[in-house]
Amino acid sequence: MATEAAADDATDAPEAYEDLLDRVRRWNTVGSAAGVLGWDQQVMMPEGGTPARSKELSTLSSIRHDMITDDETGDLLDALDDADLTDEQAAVVREVRRDYERGDAVPVELVEEISETSSEALQAWEEARAEDEFEAFAPYLEKHVELKREYAEQIDPDRDPYEVLFEDYEPCLSIDRAEAILDELRETLVPMIDAIRESDADLAVDTFEGTFPEDEQEALSREALELVGYDFDRGRLDVSSHPFTSGNQFDCRITTRFDESDPLGAVGSTIHEYGHAQYNLGLPREAWATPLGESRDLSVHESQSRLWENHVGRSRAFWELFLPTFQERFPQTEDATVEDAYEAVNQVYEDNLIRVEADELTYHLHIIVRFEIERDLIRGDLAVEDVPEAWNDKYEEYLGIRPDTDSEGCLQDIHWSHGNFGYFPTYSLGSVMAAQLYEAAEEEIDGLDAKVADGDFEDLQAWLGENVHRHGSRYETNELVRQATGDDFSAEAFTDYVEEKYGELYGI
Amino acid sequence: MATEAAADDATDAPEAYEDLLDRVRRWNTVGSAAGVLGWDQQVMMPEGGTPARSKELSTLSSIRHDMITDDETGDLLDALDDADLTDEQAAVVREVRRDYERGDAVPVELVEEISETSSEALQAWEEARAEDEFEAFAPYLEKHVELKREYAEQIDPDRDPYEVLFEDYEPCLSIDRAEAILDELRETLVPMIDAIRESDADLAVDTFEGTFPEDEQEALSREALELVGYDFDRGRLDVSSHPFTSGNQFDCRITTRFDESDPLGAVGSTIHEYGHAQYNLGLPREAWATPLGESRDLSVHESQSRLWENHVGRSRAFWELFLPTFQERFPQTEDATVEDAYEAVNQVYEDNLIRVEADELTYHLHIIVRFEIERDLIRGDLAVEDVPEAWNDKYEEYLGIRPDTDSEGCLQDIHWSHGNFGYFPTYSLGSVMAAQLYEAAEEEIDGLDAKVADGDFEDLQAWLGENVHRHGSRYETNELVRQATGDDFSAEAFTDYVEEKYGELYGI
Repeated sequence: MATEAAADDATDAPEAYEDLLDRVRRWNTVGSAAGVLGWDQQVMMPEGGTPARSKELSTLSSIRHDMITDDETGDLLDALDDADLTDEQAAVVREVRRDYERGDAVPVELVEEISETSSEALQAWEEARAEDEFEAFAPYLEKHVELKREYAEQIDPDRDPYEVLFEDYEPCLSIDRAEAILDELRETLVPMIDAIRESDADLAVDTFEGTFPEDEQEALSREALELVGYDFDRGRLDVSSHPFTSGNQFDCRITTRFDESDPLGAVGSTIHEYGHAQYNLGLPREAWATPLGESRDLSVHESQSRLWENHVGRSRAFWELFLPTFQERFPQTEDATVEDAYEAVNQVYEDNLIRVEADELTYHLHIIVRFEIERDLIRGDLAVEDVPEAWNDKYEEYLGIRPDTDSEGCLQDIHWSHGNFGYFPTYSLGSVMAAQLYEAAEEEIDGLDAKVADGDFEDLQAWLGENVHRHGSRYETNELVRQATGDDFSAEAFTDYVEEKYGELYGI
Repeated sequence: MATEAAADDATDAPEAYEDLLDRVRRWNTVGSAAGVLGWDQQVMMPEGGTPARSKELSTLSSIRHDMITDDETGDLLDALDDADLTDEQAAVVREVRRDYERGDAVPVELVEEISETSSEALQAWEEARAEDEFEAFAPYLEKHVELKREYAEQIDPDRDPYEVLFEDYEPCLSIDRAEAILDELRETLVPMIDAIRESDADLAVDTFEGTFPEDEQEALSREALELVGYDFDRGRLDVSSHPFTSGNQFDCRITTRFDESDPLGAVGSTIHEYGHAQYNLGLPREAWATPLGESRDLSVHESQSRLWENHVGRSRAFWELFLPTFQERFPQTEDATVEDAYEAVNQVYEDNLIRVEADELTYHLHIIVRFEIERDLIRGDLAVEDVPEAWNDKYEEYLGIRPDTDSEGCLQDIHWSHGNFGYFPTYSLGSVMAAQLYEAAEEEIDGLDAKVADGDFEDLQAWLGENVHRHGSRYETNELVRQATGDDFSAEAFTDYVEEKYGELYGI
C-alpha cells in the first residue's frame, strides 16, 4: 500500500532537507526529554519538587519553541519550497512547516498569558467544582475564550476560530468531516439510548460486585498486559491518579489506577493505555525524533487505545481468554460465565452524568455536549453565563437526564481550565476510527475472533503495525484511514458495530 | 559568620550581572532536567530505552555547553571585569567564569573523542575484568591518558596536567593541600593497619551473620531514614545497582542496594546517601540554578555523606538509638548488644583487596594507591604497561597484601574507563573533611553524642545547614572549612579520630 521506503533514501535529499531534519531532531529530542520529566512529575516526583520541575519544563518548552521559530527554520523551509522531494520528504516538510508557521504566528506573550490564565483557572475550577458554583469559574472561562479567540485570529483571521483551535489537536482532519461524524453519532445514539432505557433486557450486572484488593488488581493488570503482549523491556506499568501513556518507540510507559470496588475499570483502563503504548512502540525506530517516527494526531492515537479497550477488551472472545486468569486472582467470581463477564463490561449506564464513568455508548453524548457548547462559545454564539443551562438542556435532550448541580454538569472536566477548546471531539473521533480499523482488520485476518480467544494477537499486531504504526505522521488522517481500510473516515463502521452489538445485548 | 544576604539585594546589581544570572539559570535548569533523566535511566527506565535516552542526554548536554560558551557569556563576563560587586555577586561571577573558560578552552571535537573513547573503554574494561587480562584494557587506558593530557594542555599548557584534571572535580582546592592530606593519611594509616593486623583484639564480628531478606532490609532502610529525619515529601528511596543521590533543594532522591547476607551494608549505604541528600536539600531555595544554590565540589559533598555514615552511623550512640529498630525487623539478632553492633560496624578488614568492601581505615589506602598511580600516569612518570605491577607493589607496601589477579587489582574500579583522572582523591578528602567538621560540631553542640542516642538530630542538622549547606558555592573549599571550623582544611581531626577510635577498639 505504501510507497517504498528504500526509494526515499535520505542520501538523495537536498542539503537543506538534511539541515532541516537535523534541526527537527534536535527540537524533538528536547520535547522527548520534557516528556520524561512530565512522566516523572505525575508518577514519581515527591510533591516538594514542583518549583524546580515547573522551571525545568518551561525552560525546555521555551528552548524548543525558540528552535522551531528560529529564522533558520524559516530559511530552510523557503529553500525547500520548490525542491524535488520524495513523498516521505514532502511529508516531513509539510509537518515541520505547520509547526513553524503556527509557532511563528502566535506571539510569545500571548502563549504566556494563556499559560498563566491556565494556572489561575485551574485553581478557580477546583474551588468552583468543590463549592458547586459555576459563577466562581465563569470569569476565567471568559478570559480563556477571549484569549483563545485572539490566538486563533493570530494564526488565521479569516477562518472560523474553532476550526483553527481544533487544528491544534487535529491538524490533518477537516472540521467538516469531524462535525459530520459527530452529528451522525448523535443521530444514531440518542434514539438507541432511549430504546435501551425502555428495554426490559436483564443483564448480569452484579457479577463483579464486591471488594477487590488493589495489589491483586495490580497483579491482574500485569497479567492482562502479558496476555496481550506488552513488552516490559520497553515499558513499565505504574499507578497515577489519571491513567496515561508516555514515551516513544524505545520506551513507552503506561499508568493505571485502581478502585477496590471496580476491577473491570482497572482492566479496561490498562488495556486502553496499552493500545496507546503499542502505537508508540510500533513507530519506526530509525525515524525517531522526526515526523516519520512520531504518531499521527489525537484521534488516531485514541483509535489505537479504543480498539484494544473496546473491540478486543469488551469482546466475548477476550473474556474467554481472560476470565480464567481473572477468576484465579479473584476466586469470589468463580461462578461467573463468559456471558456474565461480557454483559458486565458492556452494560449501558443510562442514568450516569459523569463522562469518565460512562459506557461505550453514552460516552459519546458526553463528548458531543461539550463539543457543541465549546464550539458555540468560541464562535460567539453562546455567552459564558449561559453555559450551565445550555449544558443541562443538552443532557436532557440527548441523554434523557438532567444534572442537579454544575459539579455534576459543566464543571466535571478539567480541560476548559487549561483553555483546551477543540480537544474533546478527538475522544469520540478516535472511538469511531477504532471501529472502522477493526472492521478492516477483521476482513483481512482469517478468524480474528478465534485468535483473540486463543490469546494469539500476532496477526492483529502485525496488521496495526503495517497499516497504522509504521507510517508515523507520513499521511494525513483521512489518507491514513483510507489506505488502511479502503474508505474515507466515517461513522459507518461504528454505527454498524454498536447497532449489532447493543441490539443483541438489549434486544432493541 | 557569613555577610548578610540582605546586603546583597539583587536590585543593586549591575545590569550585566542580572543578564548573566538569567543565562546561568537557564543553562543550570537544562542541567537539572538532565539530572532527572539520568536518575530515571538508572532507576526506572526499561532497558530498551537506551537509544533515545542517550540522545536526549547528549542533546541537553550540547545545548548547555553552547549556552555556557556562547560569546554573549564571555561579553557579560568582560563587562563585569571591574564592576563593583558584592561578595556574593563576585562569588557567582568567579564560578561562572571558571565554567566559561574551561568550556571555551576545550575543543568540542576533543570532548567528543573522550566521550567516544569512554564508550569503547567501558566495554573493553568489562571484558578485561571478566577475562582478568589487563592487556585488553591497556590500549584504551593509554588512549585516555593521551586524550586527557591533551585536554589539560588545552586548558593550561604551563601547569601540571594532573593538577588541571583534578580541578575538574575540585576547582577550589589546591592540589598541594590535597596531596599533603593524602600523604599524611598514608603515613598515619599504614602503621596503624599493620598494628591492627598484629593485634589480638577479639571483636564481635559474627553478630550480623545470616540471611536478611531484602524487603525487610528495605523497610529497615526507610526506618533509618525516618530516624535521621529524611523528608520524604522532598525525596524518595529506590534501589539501583550502584547507590547514588540525585536532585536539588526541592527534590533530592537517594538509592540504595541490598545484599541478603549484609544488612549493615544497606544501612551504611542508605545513611551515606542521606548525607548527600541533606546537603542538596539544605541549599538555599531562592538561589536554585545559580552557583549560590549549588553545592560546593565533590570533597565537600563527600564530607556530608561520610559525616553521617561514619561519625553518626558508626558511633555507639547511633546504635543505642537504632539497635532496637534493627532487632524488631530482624529478631534473629535479639541477643546483640550495642557494643556488639559497634564492633561489627567498625571491624577492619585487613585482608580485603576490594575498595568498595573496605572499612573506614583501609578504604583510604585503596584510594591512595589509585591516586598515586593515576598521577604518575598523567605526569608521564609511569607507563601504562607497568600499572599492574606498580599497583600490586603498592598494595603490598601499604596494605600488606598482594592481589593475585588484575581483576582484584587495578581493574577493580570503573573510573579510568570513563577517563576520570583526578576524581578518586575526593573520596578520601571528603572523609577527612567529615572528621574536621564533626569535631567542630561536637565542640559547638552540647552533648551531641547524647542527642544522637536520643534521636535528636536537630542541632546537628542546624549546624550543618548554617555552616555548610546554605552557602552553596559561595566560598572556595578551604575557606568554607575555615569558616565552619576555624582552621584550614587538614588531616589532623581525622587522624585524631581514627587513632582514638581504633586505638580503643584494637588496643593499639
